[in-house]
Parts: sequence; structure tokens; C-alpha cells
Amino acid sequence: MMPIQKIQQLMETSDMDAIVCRLPENVLFLSHYWPVSGFCFVICPKEGEPVLLAVDLEQEYMIKNRIKDVRYFSWGTLAAGNPYDRVAELLREVTNDYQLSGKKIGFEGSFETIAPPLNSGEPGIPAAQTQKMLKTCFGVTELFDATDMLYEARVIKTDEVQQQLKIAHEIAEFGLQVFVDSLAKGKTEAEVSAVIEAEISRSGHGYKGVQHVRAWAQLMTGERTSRACSPFPATTHKTIQSGDLAVLELAVVADGYWADLTRTRAVNSATDAQLKAYQAILDAHKNVKGMLKAGISESQVDAAARQIIVDSGFGNQFVHITGHGLGFKYHEPTPLLHPNSHRKLKQGMVTSIEPGIYVPGEWGMRVEENVVIQQGEPIYLSTFATELL
Amino acid sequence: MMPIQKIQQLMETSDMDAIVCRLPENVLFLSHYWPVSGFCFVICPKEGEPVLLAVDLEQEYMIKNRIKDVRYFSWGTLAAGNPYDRVAELLREVTNDYQLSGKKIGFEGSFETIAPPLNSGEPGIPAAQTQKMLKTCFGVTELFDATDMLYEARVIKTDEVQQQLKIAHEIAEFGLQVFVDSLAKGKTEAEVSAVIEAEISRSGHGYKGVQHVRAWAQLMTGERTSRACSPFPATTHKTIQSGDLAVLELAVVADGYWADLTRTRAVNSATDAQLKAYQAILDAHKNVKGMLKAGISESQVDAAARQIIVDSGFGNQFVHITGHGLGFKYHEPTPLLHPNSHRKLKQGMVTSIEPGIYVPGEWGMRVEENVVIQQGEPIYLSTFATELL
Repeated sequence: MMPIQKIQQLMETSDMDAIVCRLPENVLFLSHYWPVSGFCFVICPKEGEPVLLAVDLEQEYMIKNRIKDVRYFSWGTLAAGNPYDRVAELLREVTNDYQLSGKKIGFEGSFETIAPPLNSGEPGIPAAQTQKMLKTCFGVTELFDATDMLYEARVIKTDEVQQQLKIAHEIAEFGLQVFVDSLAKGKTEAEVSAVIEAEISRSGHGYKGVQHVRAWAQLMTGERTSRACSPFPATTHKTIQSGDLAVLELAVVADGYWADLTRTRAVNSATDAQLKAYQAILDAHKNVKGMLKAGISESQVDAAARQIIVDSGFGNQFVHITGHGLGFKYHEPTPLLHPNSHRKLKQGMVTSIEPGIYVPGEWGMRVEENVVIQQGEPIYLSTFATELL
Repeated sequence: MMPIQKIQQLMETSDMDAIVCRLPENVLFLSHYWPVSGFCFVICPKEGEPVLLAVDLEQEYMIKNRIKDVRYFSWGTLAAGNPYDRVAELLREVTNDYQLSGKKIGFEGSFETIAPPLNSGEPGIPAAQTQKMLKTCFGVTELFDATDMLYEARVIKTDEVQQQLKIAHEIAEFGLQVFVDSLAKGKTEAEVSAVIEAEISRSGHGYKGVQHVRAWAQLMTGERTSRACSPFPATTHKTIQSGDLAVLELAVVADGYWADLTRTRAVNSATDAQLKAYQAILDAHKNVKGMLKAGISESQVDAAARQIIVDSGFGNQFVHITGHGLGFKYHEPTPLLHPNSHRKLKQGMVTSIEPGIYVPGEWGMRVEENVVIQQGEPIYLSTFATELL
């Protein structure tokens, strides 16, 4: 089902008359356009066509947008004045066009983490000023939180979204190859991370129609890998030593679609314990791959990975979940491959699979794949090599 | 005045009993620590010491933190459970310690744009879940918007913050040098942009004590430069041609402190009109430099730049403001060098100065400097070369 139909169906069942989206991830979901500045809005009424309010200067970048009714406003010039004033005018127009005044209006009230726009140095959020404007323009005293509705509408990725995610992962693989080729003792973490990000940007822009790419290559080496699970990941200027493990946590966004991959490499040599632990991680992946399909529960997938790690003797060092949803952002709330989460996986959901082992004060390792759930065998969005050495 | 004293003074005058900050820019302002994940909190009571709630795994990165009372919570492991539960416990502790129950509590209600944490791929915001937690833990039904108070407390940059900004600009200059050295016909915008960002990351990590660096090098060339004012900037895979102008919009963040510089270069040659326009931009900078000091109004600075551009015949093509505040984020609301904004500049404010000329459908150019206002001559945070060719 297409995004607009899907969200309109959910609005119908919860008696919402329209939703207004400003977060880049939801503008992307509804319009297929990943905003440059993030100051743009999609108004989707319960019936009829959605409206996109966008900055006129961004028109050059909007070639993937599917929403037919685009209404532009100016921003950034003296002539434009305060962009909120013009946006308010446009919102009032839409309110009239769709007779939304005083109706039940949904907004993005509970997104505690967000995916940035292309200008990830300054993401925007629908805070007090936007909320006040929405209330005024729609003539309502209360806005209704549409967060869960949006996550639900997004959770099954269409074939087309899956294609975009595949492309984001292919671009990420350019970076993984540079990781393999450039990791060496004597370099700093920052040096290696920089060339990974640079190659992704260089090769990713223009790749299979991709307009914009950004990468975050967080590289941890040596003892730092023992803490390399979320939310720790960050590159430093530590010099890489022979015998270090190196954990690369790589996030890539291509036109708004995310890849989240992790690879571990050993610098020159690995200990027997490390080799044994790494084999357990690969075996855990194999075990998950063999059973991963629609109808399986989140906790069953977690158990399929966890049992292998436990059997290897490293069970206490696999301290985190086995995976999480992703796609329109780096981490999405569904699926959640947690021992206590028992929802069923559905065809078209995308999840990470990321068993890891962390020996406190010594070393850590993780291999993370991203997978599309199918009725039969799952689709791995990347199948990049997983050799430790 | 130190940040804590400053905010406590403003709280006193507006009868606020405590403020709770979660945005990375305000955690940085109050603690000197730029969060990795951004899921951390500073609670600052009207009197007494502030409290920092932080993720235990981030402790390794917190060497610049000045808040003595740090209370840790776990996140990201199965043992940690839901981090909001543990944060709520800690908030209740602080509520008891400072007898804040039922008092007037401020929060970051109106930050419509934010500075990301180090993990700029997934910034967090204080949305519904955090707001509900704050109300519950502080035993209040309403939170008060402390946005203006925080901006006011931050607007005068201390000597120490100025030093950090200087370092961020020195790191940005590594990138500007790569821009000069690598810009050439036949390359794509993305190729040049990638090596600029990579050099900033490589050289910036560890530079003068800097822990973490990230750069956004948005490069526009040829006809695209005619739209190169905000919010347009974005690198593409366009191939650079001989005779192109190239506008680099460069944002750099070093441990949370921002630089925002723009340089324009001509690829091999420039037309007479371009040379004339560029000279007007340099003259506008010179004219501003000669009069920029505490006590001057925002509109006077704007006029000092604008008049030169008008005299050169390009007045209608200088379509935007002359500058904006920055420091704890890429763009801050004060100063605003707008023809209709008449507030006085004060010592320690930081502003961009960025006259630009954009000839529709042909070419555009801008030179952006960042300056600390003084009683006497202003301090330019970068004095990197401005040659066009």
C-alpha cells in the first residue's frame, strides 16, 4: 500500500481529520522528498491529495517528490520576510481548501529522536512556534499526537523503499571496503574514519540516481572496543596499534534512507579468545538467518542469536538487544529484537541483526547486518565480507 | 560571568525555580561537555550547584565537563532497562535534594532549530515523553518555556568560549586550505567537498585538545552559485567546469563550538562583472571592519556592508541579511544584522559578516567571516585568505 493510502487508512480508524508533518523523515515517507533545510510541511487530509509546503530555493533538489500539490514559500532573503508568516498563510489556504478548521489535527508530538534533514548540522523540530502556528491556522486548541500512527504507517517498507535502502547499503559498502583497505597500525582512528566518510560521499553522490549522501563512520579501536555498544560510539584521535580490534559503526543516509552496518577487524593479529568469540558471532548470524521470516516473534530471533553466544561461553558479554528497526531513520522502534518483546515480524519490516561481545576493559566486537523480512528467506541489504583478519 | 551564575541571575529575575536542559547546545553551555548521544540532562536550580545526568558509557568522553555533581544512568544494555525509568528516579532525587516539587520549572520549549549532539545522525529533542517525565518528577502540571532565557544567557561569549570558537575556526581553516588546493575542473562537487571534510576530521581530532570534530562542506559551483544563499546549500555530483565560480559554505563543530565560514573561488578565470562584484564584497567587509564595535546597532552594520554593494551596482543582488549570531549552534538569533533590527551590539557577542551577490541564473558569490565584538577593534575568528583566483 502506498504511504498516503496507508496513513489515510490509519487516520480513518482513529478519527483524525488531517496530520501535519514537519520532520524530514515523515516528509520523506509521504512525499519521497528528503528536505535540504527541513523547514517544510506535508499536510495530509483524511481524504484527498496531500499538500507539500516547501522552500522555493529547494525546488532544484525536489526531483523525487511525488506530491502534486506543492505550494512554495520564500526563506532566507530580505524580500521573503518571516517564513512563518507565509507558511501560516499557506496553512490557512489548506485549512479552507479541505475544510479543516476546528477539526482533529495530528502532529509529530513524541519523536524524541529524529532523523536530520540534509543539513544535519542544524535540524529543525516542530516546537512551540510551529505548534502555536498550527493551532491558530487550523482554529483548534489542541493538537493530537500522531507519532504512533506515523511509525505504524512506516513500519512495512514498500518495494520501492526497499530499493532505496538497498542503494544506501551499496553506498555504505564503498565505505566498508575503504575500512578493510585502510585500517593499519600507526594511523589514528580519525584518519581511517575520515577516508571512509570521504569515499562514501565521493562515490555516493550521483550513484544510481542518489542526490545526497552523508556518512557517520564511528571507529573504535583497542580497549575502547570493550564499550563499543550504543550510545558510546565515537571516533577519537587514538593511534591504532598492532593487535587492536577495530569496530566500525557506520551510519549512511542516501536521500533520507538509512543504512546501519557494523564490522569488526583485527589489526594484524587476534587472540584465540577473540577468534572464538568472533566465530560465535558469525554462527549467531547463521542461526538467525536460518529461521528469520514473517511470523517469527522478536524474542525468538533474539534467542536464536543469544543461545549461540551463550553456548560459546560469552553469554554475559552479549549485553544488548539483537536488533532494531531502521529505514526512515537510523533507529526505529519496530522491530525490537529484545528477549521480552514478543510481537510477530511481518513481511517488509526492516531490522538490524547485531550480536556483539564486550569483555570489560579488554576488547569488544560486533557484526551488524540489516535485513528485510520476507515470507521465505530474508533479504540481506548488504552481504559485505565479514572476515576478521 | 560564568554560565551558571548568568542563568541563575536570569532565573532570579523571572522567578524560575529551576531549569532542565536536554539539548546538546545547552548542556554544553552549562557544563562545557558536548554530549555524544545527546540523551543527558542538566538541572540547574535557582541557587546551588547544577546536576548533570549522563550516560555511564559516555564517561570516557566527559573530560571537559565542569559540573561536579554528575549522576550516571545506564543505557543501551539489557541490564539498563528503559533509560527513562532510571532518569526519572534521578530527577526525583534532584527534586528532593533541592526541594523543587511543585515549583516553577523551565524547559527548552521553543528551540525550533537545534545543534546536534556528536551523533548528528540522530539528534534527540525533549518531546512528549520527556515533558511528561519532567512534569511527573517535579510534581507540576505546567512547564515554563526557558528558551529566551537560555539564548540570553548564552549571547555574550566568555573568553573561554571565544577560545574554543577560535580553535573551531583554526580547524575550519584546514578545510579552507584543501578547498584552495583541490578545487579544479573535471572533479565533482562531491569529490572536493569530501576531501575538505576528511581533512578537517583528520587534522581536527586531537588538535589543541579537541576531542570531536565534524564538518559540513556544502559546495556549489557554476550556475548553482546563483542560488547559494540559505537554505539552498548542498553539494551535488555536478562536474566542475573551467570558468565556474565555486561557493563553499563550511560549517564545522569542534566539541560543540561552531564555525560558519564561506569562501568563493573562481575556477581558472572570472569575468569582469564577477571581479567587480567580488571587489565590492571585499570592500563591504573592509567597511564593516572599520566600524564594528560594541554600541553600534545591528542595522548600522548591515548598512555599512549594504551601501558598498549598492554603490557597486549590485544592491538588488544582495538579497539576504549581513549576518547572524553563532557559537553554541550554527545560527543563533542574536545578533541579527538586518536592515530593520536596531539592537546594539555588545562586547563578547559573536556574529557572522557575510555579504553576498547572486545574479539569477548566472552566478553568485559570498565571503563569510565570524567576528567577536569588542569595545575596540573586533576579533576575526578566521583571517583565511579571500583571493578569488
